[in-house]
Amino acid sequence: MRLKRKDILSIEELSKDEIELILSTAESFKEVSERDIKKVPTLRGRTIINLFYEASTRTRTSFEIAAKRMSADAINISTSSSSVVKGETLKDTAKNLEAMNPDCIVLRHPSSGAPEILAKYVKCSVINAGDGSHEHPSQALLDMLTVKERFGKIEGLNITIVGDIAHSRVARSNIYGFTKLGAKVTVVGPPTMMPSGIENIGCSVSNRIEDAISNADVIMMLRIQLERHEVPLFPTIREYSRLFGLDSKKLETAKKDVVILHPGPINRGVEISPEIADGPYSLILDQVKNGVAVRMALFYLLLGGSRE
Amino acid sequence: MRLKRKDILSIEELSKDEIELILSTAESFKEVSERDIKKVPTLRGRTIINLFYEASTRTRTSFEIAAKRMSADAINISTSSSSVVKGETLKDTAKNLEAMNPDCIVLRHPSSGAPEILAKYVKCSVINAGDGSHEHPSQALLDMLTVKERFGKIEGLNITIVGDIAHSRVARSNIYGFTKLGAKVTVVGPPTMMPSGIENIGCSVSNRIEDAISNADVIMMLRIQLERHEVPLFPTIREYSRLFGLDSKKLETAKKDVVILHPGPINRGVEISPEIADGPYSLILDQVKNGVAVRMALFYLLLGGSRE
Amino acid sequence: MRLKRKDILSIEELSKDEIELILSTAESFKEVSERDIKKVPTLRGRTIINLFYEASTRTRTSFEIAAKRMSADAINISTSSSSVVKGETLKDTAKNLEAMNPDCIVLRHPSSGAPEILAKYVKCSVINAGDGSHEHPSQALLDMLTVKERFGKIEGLNITIVGDIAHSRVARSNIYGFTKLGAKVTVVGPPTMMPSGIENIGCSVSNRIEDAISNADVIMMLRIQLERHEVPLFPTIREYSRLFGLDSKKLETAKKDVVILHPGPINRGVEISPEIADGPYSLILDQVKNGVAVRMALFYLLLGGSRE
Repeated sequence: MRLKRKDILSIEELSKDEIELILSTAESFKEVSERDIKKVPTLRGRTIINLFYEASTRTRTSFEIAAKRMSADAINISTSSSSVVKGETLKDTAKNLEAMNPDCIVLRHPSSGAPEILAKYVKCSVINAGDGSHEHPSQALLDMLTVKERFGKIEGLNITIVGDIAHSRVARSNIYGFTKLGAKVTVVGPPTMMPSGIENIGCSVSNRIEDAISNADVIMMLRIQLERHEVPLFPTIREYSRLFGLDSKKLETAKKDVVILHPGPINRGVEISPEIADGPYSLILDQVKNGVAVRMALFYLLLGGSRE
Repeated sequence: MRLKRKDILSIEELSKDEIELILSTAESFKEVSERDIKKVPTLRGRTIINLFYEASTRTRTSFEIAAKRMSADAINISTSSSSVVKGETLKDTAKNLEAMNPDCIVLRHPSSGAPEILAKYVKCSVINAGDGSHEHPSQALLDMLTVKERFGKIEGLNITIVGDIAHSRVARSNIYGFTKLGAKVTVVGPPTMMPSGIENIGCSVSNRIEDAISNADVIMMLRIQLERHEVPLFPTIREYSRLFGLDSKKLETAKKDVVILHPGPINRGVEISPEIADGPYSLILDQVKNGVAVRMALFYLLLGGSRE
Repeated sequence: MRLKRKDILSIEELSKDEIELILSTAESFKEVSERDIKKVPTLRGRTIINLFYEASTRTRTSFEIAAKRMSADAINISTSSSSVVKGETLKDTAKNLEAMNPDCIVLRHPSSGAPEILAKYVKCSVINAGDGSHEHPSQALLDMLTVKERFGKIEGLNITIVGDIAHSRVARSNIYGFTKLGAKVTVVGPPTMMPSGIENIGCSVSNRIEDAISNADVIMMLRIQLERHEVPLFPTIREYSRLFGLDSKKLETAKKDVVILHPGPINRGVEISPEIADGPYSLILDQVKNGVAVRMALFYLLLGGSRE
């Protein structure tokens, strides 16, 4: 089995069937990481380049571990050691990397759309590992896998996403993904963090977290990315936390079997209180575990076997 | 054979039998690095993460080479490219890495006790690759292996450690290790670099290097780590070097078969003169060679075979 | 087959036969990178250290991919994470790395002659990956391979090298290489970028690019390395570009089957116009592709099989 596409650039472009194929493939790879010998020979001799223009422990590590567990060769390039400092364009970097015959380039980039540009320039597969405030498809796929594991389905669930919706590629990918699989998505956050017209991509908007979580099956808390805001979007962190941070008190109004997701790294005490992050509703570490499986599945479905 | 413990956090916690098992296992791995094909399949499919919060060429490289020669997959994470810059706690980093199913995390950290905290949070093995001024157990193990190879034994030897005892994790690990194996350890250095009560962990204290080396079988010179001192601990480097640096003149009073160790990287002309560092008494490069073997042994004894 | 030398430090030191052996070996390795399983077991269990004191995406990545496709273990050390910051000398770094039993050290260094010093200190092979303004032998080898593929030969061709000859290790290596293989090399650039006496190593000198390219079979444009010049060597980038940059207009006077090389990364619109860089005469991406094959050949010829 193989995806009939070269790249994974966004959830927006994936069909429901494609998403379900990725999730079921990822489920089948989970047990590899539970073995003593956490390695399958499937992608031996394939070359995967992790090209990261933004720092990231967990995403780069997750892709690198996934590549190695599939027996592929993984090459890491980060901006700090790259010729980006010499002013090379993305196109030239792309064409040069392609000339070394990689099978896949995993790209994280601060500019929305960079992976799409890269994918046009290279014949090999491109996976978007997060581009600006556009999309982060492998994150949404691992979120969907985590929810599907818990509830046995995604259709009909109420998903509430809380935080800086306007700047969040995680939110955008998840809105596309969960609505395609039949869930109802509500987004909530301060007005300054809510992009106008977000309803057009299929979600509802709420202004009060208490309203938005009362009927939620899944609450996804977004990271407050202070480092990305040129001007402050709310008066103080304390005020943000009081109004939109998730703590035990706010959670009292939620369903008994609600689950909490967060893409990490978490700001403890800002968007999520420690007792919630570490508590019984939290699936945060399941998300990380599923991240490796989803990325193994993406590599397998893009590079493995023969293309149909 | 396997150690009956999950982690290697300190020499203080190891028994004499455990140390001897590690040393004899390391001896048996030395020949692997002398082969054309420097690789054994023992740890194929195991994932080892090198998590370094302080820069280090030799220690990180030594662990990485050791992992690869055991056929394990090695993943490097350094602070410069990590989400540490995003303010994540060590606990969250730990739980997140654990969720990716590593078999071992090798941690270097500027804070004493960080590896112990990490080890409590994760089910996988943790090896302390140097924590603050606490311990650096793999360094002491390679030092013990180097001395044992030269003298055929450690019991009864006189070991003199010279330099900044108060700030040296290498000194602390070696004091514990050599005294457990029956050697007599003397430490010497300026009063400002001598922690009060250091005698309580089993060593003697001297204030003059000439006294301390006259009867020594092994002289271990510590690196002067100027980068760690907030206030100067001696008036000038020249004065330190004159009083506590090892040169040919001071060495005249030593035993004919004395050997010199240094954990590196050396400050030539400060704590050790070039003719001593490169001379016939120096075992500095044997230490580096034994470092790879000791780390292969640690990986083997923690991860290899089935736990008893 | 194996080279009867330990190191590749310069093209100057290689004989014509050695260069031809490397090129023909590289040709035979090219198809490995075209396979699905881009890997041969030849150098399994060999340890190759990429020691880079200058940032470089393409060169480090090319060596790393070459090592992995030969099944060697590749270890990357860059200055940002190395104990260089602790002031260790190159000699001590060399002896310490050697003690870990690598089979080859690939060195990039800002100082001319550093690889030669390293090679004296270590028993393992050393490959110069660019040292100051001295040489960059693997670059010249991939350039020669690219030209040989296109023309079927090198003897008798006219090679014109344009730009900052004085600061270019690429120019020096190529002058030696192409003249050894029987080509005629002409260098052209502003007088401030032309080293006095460059004719003595076998090339002709021209001051006008139009003169120098009219009879050229190969035009090699050098990168303007603004970051290396302590004082400006020409009034403005625009003036440099007008006088010595290659564009369609200047190329009108060239031969119909002329080819354009550039070591990359290119400064579009400075030394080369975009329509030339991406146009039909450009072999820039063939150079990159051949870079992996040349480096696989170097590893094979230095480390593979048994030394004669």
